[in-house]
Amino acid sequence: MSESNALVIGASQGIGLSFVQHLLQRPQIKTIYATYRSQDSAAGLLTLAAQHPEQVSCIAVDITQEAQIEACCDQIQPTGDLLHWVINCVGILHEGELQPEKGLRQLNAEQLTRYFQVNSIGAALWAKHLLPLLKHKDQSIFATISAKIGSIGDNHLGGWYGYRASKAALNMFMRTAAIEYRRRSPQTIVVTLHPGTTDTKLSKPFQRNIPPEKLFTVDRTVTQLLAVLDGLGKDDSGQFFSWDGSRLPW
Amino acid sequence: MSESNALVIGASQGIGLSFVQHLLQRPQIKTIYATYRSQDSAAGLLTLAAQHPEQVSCIAVDITQEAQIEACCDQIQPTGDLLHWVINCVGILHEGELQPEKGLRQLNAEQLTRYFQVNSIGAALWAKHLLPLLKHKDQSIFATISAKIGSIGDNHLGGWYGYRASKAALNMFMRTAAIEYRRRSPQTIVVTLHPGTTDTKLSKPFQRNIPPEKLFTVDRTVTQLLAVLDGLGKDDSGQFFSWDGSRLPW
Repeated sequence: MSESNALVIGASQGIGLSFVQHLLQRPQIKTIYATYRSQDSAAGLLTLAAQHPEQVSCIAVDITQEAQIEACCDQIQPTGDLLHWVINCVGILHEGELQPEKGLRQLNAEQLTRYFQVNSIGAALWAKHLLPLLKHKDQSIFATISAKIGSIGDNHLGGWYGYRASKAALNMFMRTAAIEYRRRSPQTIVVTLHPGTTDTKLSKPFQRNIPPEKLFTVDRTVTQLLAVLDGLGKDDSGQFFSWDGSRLPW
Repeated sequence: MSESNALVIGASQGIGLSFVQHLLQRPQIKTIYATYRSQDSAAGLLTLAAQHPEQVSCIAVDITQEAQIEACCDQIQPTGDLLHWVINCVGILHEGELQPEKGLRQLNAEQLTRYFQVNSIGAALWAKHLLPLLKHKDQSIFATISAKIGSIGDNHLGGWYGYRASKAALNMFMRTAAIEYRRRSPQTIVVTLHPGTTDTKLSKPFQRNIPPEKLFTVDRTVTQLLAVLDGLGKDDSGQFFSWDGSRLPW
């Protein structure tokens, strides 16, 4: 593969920011587009971009607004850049009053809707608007961070209703998108990934019961996920992979 | 089991209405509570209830409004009736401008949100509020109509993004609820069901390519699903069953 370009969605911190850092090390990647929701929490990304003005291009996108997703793609298109890597790292588990539900008593429609809007629907809308940028003669990868806790078959503990259901819905959206991409953009590999529990803001309140060897640094997680992505072939499109490259049950 | 009571959610027509008719034939069932969204489309149910005023009690519930779900449960509770059967038949595939998406181009956030609110979140909110009515010394069943098209692993055709993802999310919600019920109401069996393609308003626009022997009458579907439900044991809670009693992949 010759010169290539990447888009990291939700790159302001954590796994997304680390993907930008890792991809910067790859000489064949020309431009890395990096989206963030709010400037307030994107200091790390904006600093990195200032250090690499030729390579990193930041775009503000609230993924619950389809018009902003579309505008982001419209901003990439006129540059003539096609995308070879799209890595979608957007996801919420907790956010202010929104907290994962320990039990049924804590369910409410508003919070559940918010989980679906951020963790599921956003990715589907990206799949809609990115197809023209991912469709070209070279191989391209469209990977979305999901979570093993979104595996229905693997659910033996319960709890976390909204997060679990929104990740199951995400897995379905991406599997369905993989089928459509196979027809309309056959060089694109569409997958969902389980990163393992990673030391980020998302997992912070829930790290107490994680044995230290099972809590990955962000750097380790991204190294592992890139190894998985580097090993993918066309037949892997539509699947759900764990950080060690194994397939996860739906 | 001695005297029992049932609640059929979404009983105005189709599979839900037929469940009311079938349960009316069971002498051990004392009261059948039956919910409908709008009087305009509930003529069949309201007529049936007028013919069986001692047995059928109709309650208007818009399941996208948690307060109405709660009010419905509050209306059953003071009667002293506990529930032995809850069958949730609410689901949308098409509704006015909302139509299943043939491809990514047709996705929009509003329609996807509506699918989740009706097909997924409603069932989770029922699970929240019904627990006290399902919790008693006898066995109780809480069954929700899902669809094989909501199986992620079985998805080979693509399309119908919102419907598929909302049914996958429903399956996750009900599996998660089954785990919580096992702890808090261990006599309750929580399952999701694939009814097969049934001759209802939901499938009407999509029946053209269904071979006649695969298009079930409503009566046949409900006979088959009741046979599945009658055969369930406690170990089946948290599973996803087809109309022939086989287990479906997630």
